[in-house]
Amino acid sequence: MDASNLAKGCKTASMGLAALSSEEKNTALAAMAKSLKANAKEIFAANGTDLERAVKSNLDKALLKRLKFDESKLAEVISGIESLVHLPDPVGKTLAATKLDDGLELYRVSRPMGVIGVIFESRPDALVQIAALCLKSANAVLLKGGSEAASTNQILAKIVHDACVVSKAPNGWLGLLETRDDVEELLKMDKEVDLLIPRGSNSFVQYIMQHTLIPVLGHADGICHLYIDKIADPEMAVKLAVDSKCQYVSVCNAVETILIHKDTAENILPPLAKEFGSRGVKMLGCPATCAIIDVLPASEDDWRTEYLDYVVSIRIVDSMDAAISHINTNGSGHTDVIVTADRQRAETFMDMADTADAFWNCSSRFADGFRFGLGAEVGISTNKLHARGPVGLEGLMTYQWRLVGNGQCVADYVSPGTRSFCHAPLEKDFFSDSGKTA
Amino acid sequence: MDASNLAKGCKTASMGLAALSSEEKNTALAAMAKSLKANAKEIFAANGTDLERAVKSNLDKALLKRLKFDESKLAEVISGIESLVHLPDPVGKTLAATKLDDGLELYRVSRPMGVIGVIFESRPDALVQIAALCLKSANAVLLKGGSEAASTNQILAKIVHDACVVSKAPNGWLGLLETRDDVEELLKMDKEVDLLIPRGSNSFVQYIMQHTLIPVLGHADGICHLYIDKIADPEMAVKLAVDSKCQYVSVCNAVETILIHKDTAENILPPLAKEFGSRGVKMLGCPATCAIIDVLPASEDDWRTEYLDYVVSIRIVDSMDAAISHINTNGSGHTDVIVTADRQRAETFMDMADTADAFWNCSSRFADGFRFGLGAEVGISTNKLHARGPVGLEGLMTYQWRLVGNGQCVADYVSPGTRSFCHAPLEKDFFSDSGKTA
Repeated sequence: MDASNLAKGCKTASMGLAALSSEEKNTALAAMAKSLKANAKEIFAANGTDLERAVKSNLDKALLKRLKFDESKLAEVISGIESLVHLPDPVGKTLAATKLDDGLELYRVSRPMGVIGVIFESRPDALVQIAALCLKSANAVLLKGGSEAASTNQILAKIVHDACVVSKAPNGWLGLLETRDDVEELLKMDKEVDLLIPRGSNSFVQYIMQHTLIPVLGHADGICHLYIDKIADPEMAVKLAVDSKCQYVSVCNAVETILIHKDTAENILPPLAKEFGSRGVKMLGCPATCAIIDVLPASEDDWRTEYLDYVVSIRIVDSMDAAISHINTNGSGHTDVIVTADRQRAETFMDMADTADAFWNCSSRFADGFRFGLGAEVGISTNKLHARGPVGLEGLMTYQWRLVGNGQCVADYVSPGTRSFCHAPLEKDFFSDSGKTA
Repeated sequence: MDASNLAKGCKTASMGLAALSSEEKNTALAAMAKSLKANAKEIFAANGTDLERAVKSNLDKALLKRLKFDESKLAEVISGIESLVHLPDPVGKTLAATKLDDGLELYRVSRPMGVIGVIFESRPDALVQIAALCLKSANAVLLKGGSEAASTNQILAKIVHDACVVSKAPNGWLGLLETRDDVEELLKMDKEVDLLIPRGSNSFVQYIMQHTLIPVLGHADGICHLYIDKIADPEMAVKLAVDSKCQYVSVCNAVETILIHKDTAENILPPLAKEFGSRGVKMLGCPATCAIIDVLPASEDDWRTEYLDYVVSIRIVDSMDAAISHINTNGSGHTDVIVTADRQRAETFMDMADTADAFWNCSSRFADGFRFGLGAEVGISTNKLHARGPVGLEGLMTYQWRLVGNGQCVADYVSPGTRSFCHAPLEKDFFSDSGKTA
């Protein structure tokens, strides 16, 4: 089936998904886990085909490792599905309730988005994780994985989809896209698809954002900063700089630029250079930095470069305002850290830094859905609309206003001397009086 | 100053705005109200110039009425500003708080968007309302009003901006765009502008949505439905149909199509036709409708037409599923009503109708920020991301994650046998311990 028909099928299925009870969704998730276990051999065989082809085409070792779907990956995705079963249902929560008048009650209720398109990298385990998150949140999903994992993705998509259909999920709730043409087609389906989540390189995400009318959730860049204020403990500052830069260099929440207040630069730079040096980190500095430690000069471009490597740029600033201005001009609004002993200055930094994650005296590497306690993470968003920072199940939800009356007309509230609104908060759940299983 | 420089100025000003205290913002709002009062004569004189030009160019009466800015309009906007002063500050609210570990606390805190662009219709009072909402929510704003109100908008923008600057709001927080070229320029400023709110005709809003990378909040269409279920009280159904269609025909929350379950069509249609007929509503029906009452046939296009007039299309459906499918295929996801005596069927309708406002046994005309009790309304959104349905101050806010530690590194949580996360809910406000005025 082509992408356009898959998307239309998803749109139709999304309405049925939206009406599933929590129990039905959890039964489907359990069936998904069971069927994955039962079909382990077939999955490993399909993965073997992909791996063979990848070896023949000289795929590099890191990619081969990501492509591999073995017993331990299977156990991991199954345990992920099982933990989702135990999470509260994100659908149908009453987010707010107001009494407008006697017998006229307004509820804001969480609802699924509808159809979500996810374009993900080579790991086939991501397919299962995303599909399970979408089912739990009652969203239909179109998936496009890496072409090197084609056989594994095919069998996983079939198992995951078919297992759930048995348990009442509507046919067609999950669609697998397989080619680049499918992705081009997907970008045009703004009537059917409510949200796109592209994961991948900066240029790829930028391309998606610029070629579709569908809202896109995600981040292109992760240019994160650590700012060491004038009244920072030098030992803590150096420790946090090292963790933020070196703990895992190739990820979006690693720091790329360190900003240092001029009053403390001479205390910080020598021990910092020593720590970075011993870890093989290449340092690039502004002229003032180069005057204190022996490093190469940074170019203007360095302030806007996401190295994702053992490279760091260092700049000395005259004030906290200058640091904030540097961050807001050159950063990507992902994660930015201040190290300071002064609470008031920390608050001003967080108020003025235009960033999703504003951290005080801790490592930038904590910017992560699991570490934040969100459960599963769909991605990290540098959008300001909807979801910002690490995105969990909540980011896959929208809401609906539900007004419940017994025949009220607006005309009765417009003519003078008739009815008026009381707008009193209600301590009531939309479903609390109903027989429906929540 | 050209649009691009105004936008850059707004971006710079937005950082200062974000750091204003509630008191400072309220002082600025009070100064705004005072200065509008003090400059009433100059405002009316400028408005006189606009009105004169409008009369000469034969502007129609309804538009002239909207353009007029007199004592009563002034009193209205001033009372609007004064009520904003008394609303709680939407900035800096702790939305969630989690203890990750001893001394490592995560907060989700409401923050302003940054820079908002609003393109609005001819009413100059809208300029003051929007500017006041933006100031309260600490957002810088670029405004483009109708060209027929140019002189009034100029003086209002100057008064509103300058009054606030005296009270600590940064210079340049409000920019007035004046030409169509300015709007074209604005659409390209996706680095500076965080959100666009266009108000106006369907084709205008569509144009904006298709020609910018800036997120757009709003609605193009308002194709709203009223579905009369098989077990609906006929009297209530007819009353709600009349209010939803006729109470004010030219607005987005008026109903355009009435769907009736086949089992009750013969009970509903004759009294409905009588009520509509007596109010001069032109009715267009599906073949089954035309067989019961004497009305003109509806074309396929009628199901997707926003009449905004005394015209209604009527369709008989075989089931509630068919009604939902009609709504999800032809509607605009704005406001859709079910009239039924059965709670379970009402819930299924609300679960499956893909719409911002799902109403049960009340008029579609209640879909409005004021009636919902949101205070001022920025607009109505048919987006599913971020804000949906009537949008109040909350729709102008984003959030920021704030992680507060005392030197924690991720390395300490990764090595086995060291630290681990507790993810315990915190009953604590981010600002509760600080000396800052909330």
